[in-house]
Amino acid sequence: MSLVIVGTVAFDAIETPFGKTDKIVGGAATYAGLAASYLYNRVKVISVIGEDFGDHIDMLTNKGIAVEGVQVIKGGKSFFWAGKYHNDMNSRDTLITELNVLADFDPKIPISYQDCKYLLLGNLTPQVQINTLERLAHKPKLVVLDTMNFWMDVALDDLKKVLKKVDVLTINDSEARQLSGEYSLVKAADAILRMGPKYLIIKKGEHGALLFGEGQVFSAPALPLADVFDPTGAGDTFAGGFIGYLAKVKSINFANMRNAVIYGSALASFCVEKFGTERLQGLTKEEIVSRIKEFITLSKFDIGE
Amino acid sequence: MSLVIVGTVAFDAIETPFGKTDKIVGGAATYAGLAASYLYNRVKVISVIGEDFGDHIDMLTNKGIAVEGVQVIKGGKSFFWAGKYHNDMNSRDTLITELNVLADFDPKIPISYQDCKYLLLGNLTPQVQINTLERLAHKPKLVVLDTMNFWMDVALDDLKKVLKKVDVLTINDSEARQLSGEYSLVKAADAILRMGPKYLIIKKGEHGALLFGEGQVFSAPALPLADVFDPTGAGDTFAGGFIGYLAKVKSINFANMRNAVIYGSALASFCVEKFGTERLQGLTKEEIVSRIKEFITLSKFDIGE
Repeated sequence: MSLVIVGTVAFDAIETPFGKTDKIVGGAATYAGLAASYLYNRVKVISVIGEDFGDHIDMLTNKGIAVEGVQVIKGGKSFFWAGKYHNDMNSRDTLITELNVLADFDPKIPISYQDCKYLLLGNLTPQVQINTLERLAHKPKLVVLDTMNFWMDVALDDLKKVLKKVDVLTINDSEARQLSGEYSLVKAADAILRMGPKYLIIKKGEHGALLFGEGQVFSAPALPLADVFDPTGAGDTFAGGFIGYLAKVKSINFANMRNAVIYGSALASFCVEKFGTERLQGLTKEEIVSRIKEFITLSKFDIGE
Repeated sequence: MSLVIVGTVAFDAIETPFGKTDKIVGGAATYAGLAASYLYNRVKVISVIGEDFGDHIDMLTNKGIAVEGVQVIKGGKSFFWAGKYHNDMNSRDTLITELNVLADFDPKIPISYQDCKYLLLGNLTPQVQINTLERLAHKPKLVVLDTMNFWMDVALDDLKKVLKKVDVLTINDSEARQLSGEYSLVKAADAILRMGPKYLIIKKGEHGALLFGEGQVFSAPALPLADVFDPTGAGDTFAGGFIGYLAKVKSINFANMRNAVIYGSALASFCVEKFGTERLQGLTKEEIVSRIKEFITLSKFDIGE
């Protein structure tokens, strides 16, 4: 039994109002894998990197994350993204996108991964997400899909195909509006849940997240932060924390989904405190427990009537 | 002992994507008064209207709201605002602002209002807010101030004076950023709390509200709604529900403030369901209790660890 994460393992160069980095390790599967590793100890990653990645892959293996499914392309260069955040930290410009080895990525599933019970399909070409699902010998107990507006623009038909096969979709509010054609998030959720997923999570950044499913809604707060240092990877970290929590507690129901959203939000709140994966690498269990308590205090109220 | 609300009692003409109204009754004190009247039975309004208002004032007196402090200017015309909401319902254009009798509004406090223990200074010229405070024989137990970006633009010094004299300030997120010069709402709250108020509520519309004070933060959700019919008065309704709850429970502490924010949010969620004050006029206690339960279900989670 394991939690398998498919996504990019890559290099990023990031500029924010607080500073800039050279090439540092990034990628959706990196962030999601690190986050999940704090909650579940059988995390396995499927991805592709170039020879240039070198021993940076230790960032994952040091956390006990399996990387047998990470293909290393001889002579190839790893996916590279460079971006610059605006002063409000909510919008960013992409400066460089070099697909490199990602352009021909064809996911291979090692035999040791065929015990996959929880599957996170990170933000990638919908066709790669479909291929991964089809190559698993057994349907996982839970499939979580992350995607973005880009795939709605260029591969909507494929995206709709994969939506039919997943349990949970995570997108942000503007993507939910784009995918559904509805402005109201309640109406958007209704429309998207009719496309296939049983649950929908709408990520709203500094405004928290909404979880829809089973005819219920859960509104999770975001932790108000004095400084958001670097938002890169926050969404992937959220998804990793979310599915990691569900893999840990095993039982899939709305009550556990609520908690999973809080765990995802808590891990994402650490992610943005430093550049890249830095904060996620050095977390302690005590810090996570303490952050969860902050979320409880943040949102609790007690109306006795 | 009473709850006094100072603010406009006026006419509005509203256009939204769902339709448009002729002149209907509006005004900050109208919305706040109606909301508070469901929670507390000694609500008194201070305002000014023209002779043209006629027996529309019954909308308040029918709810047991005292209007002795509402001056009727002979031959005068009531304040009139006309606005048109954009498709996203978050932004609007003001089409007409006729100050009329509001231009020379000088608040008078009837002797019967001198038992004021809870005071809501609705969105008005800061000088009128100061005058009201100075004309009360006894300092109220709790003073809540509502204001808007307009007064930050044209009367910042006066606004800063009145801020020193109030317990709670309610503004929206962009106003908090403007007033403090800080983008982070945590830093904005720190700066604003240093200006005088002991508590700050940042209203975020469809994203809920944040309450800061006593070194704590509370994040309240907004109820996700399929249709927002007309946002006019939602902020005033929030303020009225907030102070009405505190007047009812009497004790001012952070735990009760949390509940007061939920009551304000619940009443505001009704307000936007129909045009103008229509939904607020016909509420039942059962509907309010049921809506509060929706807020509990919406935001509860139970992480046992």
